Amino acid sequence: MNIAVLGSGAMGALFGGYLSKENNVWLVDVDEAKIGHIAENGVRIREKSGEETVFRPNAVNDTAGLPRMDLIIVFVKAMFTAKALETNKSLIGSETYVMSLQNGVGHEIKLLQFVDQGHVIIGSTQHNSSILSNGYINHGGAGRTAIGLLDGSSDRIAHIAESFTKCGLECTSSDEVKQQIWDKLFLNTSASALTAVLQVPLGFILDDRHACRLMEKLVSEAITVANAAGFSKFKEEAVIEGIKKSLDNARGGYTSIYADIKNGARTEVDTISGSIIEAAKDLGISVPYHEMLVSLIHAMENRVAYTI
Amino acid sequence: MNIAVLGSGAMGALFGGYLSKENNVWLVDVDEAKIGHIAENGVRIREKSGEETVFRPNAVNDTAGLPRMDLIIVFVKAMFTAKALETNKSLIGSETYVMSLQNGVGHEIKLLQFVDQGHVIIGSTQHNSSILSNGYINHGGAGRTAIGLLDGSSDRIAHIAESFTKCGLECTSSDEVKQQIWDKLFLNTSASALTAVLQVPLGFILDDRHACRLMEKLVSEAITVANAAGFSKFKEEAVIEGIKKSLDNARGGYTSIYADIKNGARTEVDTISGSIIEAAKDLGISVPYHEMLVSLIHAMENRVAYTI
Repeated sequence: MNIAVLGSGAMGALFGGYLSKENNVWLVDVDEAKIGHIAENGVRIREKSGEETVFRPNAVNDTAGLPRMDLIIVFVKAMFTAKALETNKSLIGSETYVMSLQNGVGHEIKLLQFVDQGHVIIGSTQHNSSILSNGYINHGGAGRTAIGLLDGSSDRIAHIAESFTKCGLECTSSDEVKQQIWDKLFLNTSASALTAVLQVPLGFILDDRHACRLMEKLVSEAITVANAAGFSKFKEEAVIEGIKKSLDNARGGYTSIYADIKNGARTEVDTISGSIIEAAKDLGISVPYHEMLVSLIHAMENRVAYTI
Repeated sequence: MNIAVLGSGAMGALFGGYLSKENNVWLVDVDEAKIGHIAENGVRIREKSGEETVFRPNAVNDTAGLPRMDLIIVFVKAMFTAKALETNKSLIGSETYVMSLQNGVGHEIKLLQFVDQGHVIIGSTQHNSSILSNGYINHGGAGRTAIGLLDGSSDRIAHIAESFTKCGLECTSSDEVKQQIWDKLFLNTSASALTAVLQVPLGFILDDRHACRLMEKLVSEAITVANAAGFSKFKEEAVIEGIKKSLDNARGGYTSIYADIKNGARTEVDTISGSIIEAAKDLGISVPYHEMLVSLIHAMENRVAYTI
């Protein structure tokens, strides 16, 4: 396949490097120094074992004259997604798939500005990677990657998953991916986030009528966003029932975001609940409970360091 | 004056009793046992000193045939205000003033269904009273009562304030009352309430940009309600500036609602922020930040007693 990877940061370099084993890969970045270094020296990946491998994908900061791609993977920061696709839209043909494995949800809203639902691939990956220097990255953790088409049967992208796996990035395609991503998010942006604000175990969200009502309001907002983003099949009642079951099974459990607030650490609220707010903004939807939630959690993060 | 006091609870009996010194007072209540007891035995008030006095206002549960009143004071629970006035509307003439000294704000919205703005009196009182038994109350604390007309110069109700004072209920009338009630509420429903949720001193609300933004959103909602309720003169920017000045002057200070949450006690959030929600409901205004705020505080009140 011809594959363009937009963004040569930690994750872009990792995927661009690995995928170049079996594909024609172009790593694309606006940073001339970084991309020049990779063009000259390749991508050097340090594995957890200490072993290092150098891959040689193409590296460019201008895609003029390049062929239409079979696949474009977006690995820029979420706020630059639309800009990166706009700048490189000559790479997009009628058969091109555009994929986002970025954290959070709602990235598909931006991809849909460039290709139809039958060519948008979303997914999640357990790989972890960090930059050591230009083109030199530390592959801190491997894991599974799951991808799915926004619209239509994911059989059509089975060959993409196979190529990923062949290149050393274990990958499956399934119709359930988008459902799984959102289901996880519905729980995290409602009940989990509330356990942080209220500093309570998960069971409290189920048992206290005020906390439970807040959970339901947050789920309702998130579902409105999800369905407006093209997932018309989420039913509020069913999602809430599912969350209540999860809470009932983990009454005494504490979430990681609860622990972050308790320990005075920064949370991941921006990539979770924050991504709902971002997606809502793109769609012109009002999500006041999420806005208040994210502001409260950030304020709680900051109070640790506060002195008068 | 002919005065009807709707509601013969702790505050209604106190005011009805005292005002009967110099006026024709009818205490009105739907509770036949209570009103029968008062009709027979009068209102007995135990003062802080231990001294007890018995007053003899009229006590009725049916106002048919009574004259139009000069003044009607509403001392029923807020949710019954409209019902009580509807049931006894034969007491209301074109010259009748209707007064609310109930806790919280927005009661005027209900009074305006029965008289025009020039006959609605709102105010606040520092008197404190509790029921010992039917018609027998403990006057736990005395203080000032301030009243004002919703519309027009409060000079027109100076005679009412004088009569209150003459009867032992020190009272002043002023054009500033409604302004003072709302200004106090703007501070309490935003910055003060947030110090409870975040468990921080007042200065944090000024210094942290997330907390400050939440304060501004809450003030904005409260002002929308206030202005829709007929106070078109509140300007968001000026109110927020005033609150910021108060916060700056009390950076290290802690609020009573902060202490309530810290100590695991019930708060007064329903009569403060809750009254904004009630008023907003009457006016068809959406106040999601207030709804979330009140639910969070109630959940925090409840977590103390929570066991899995």
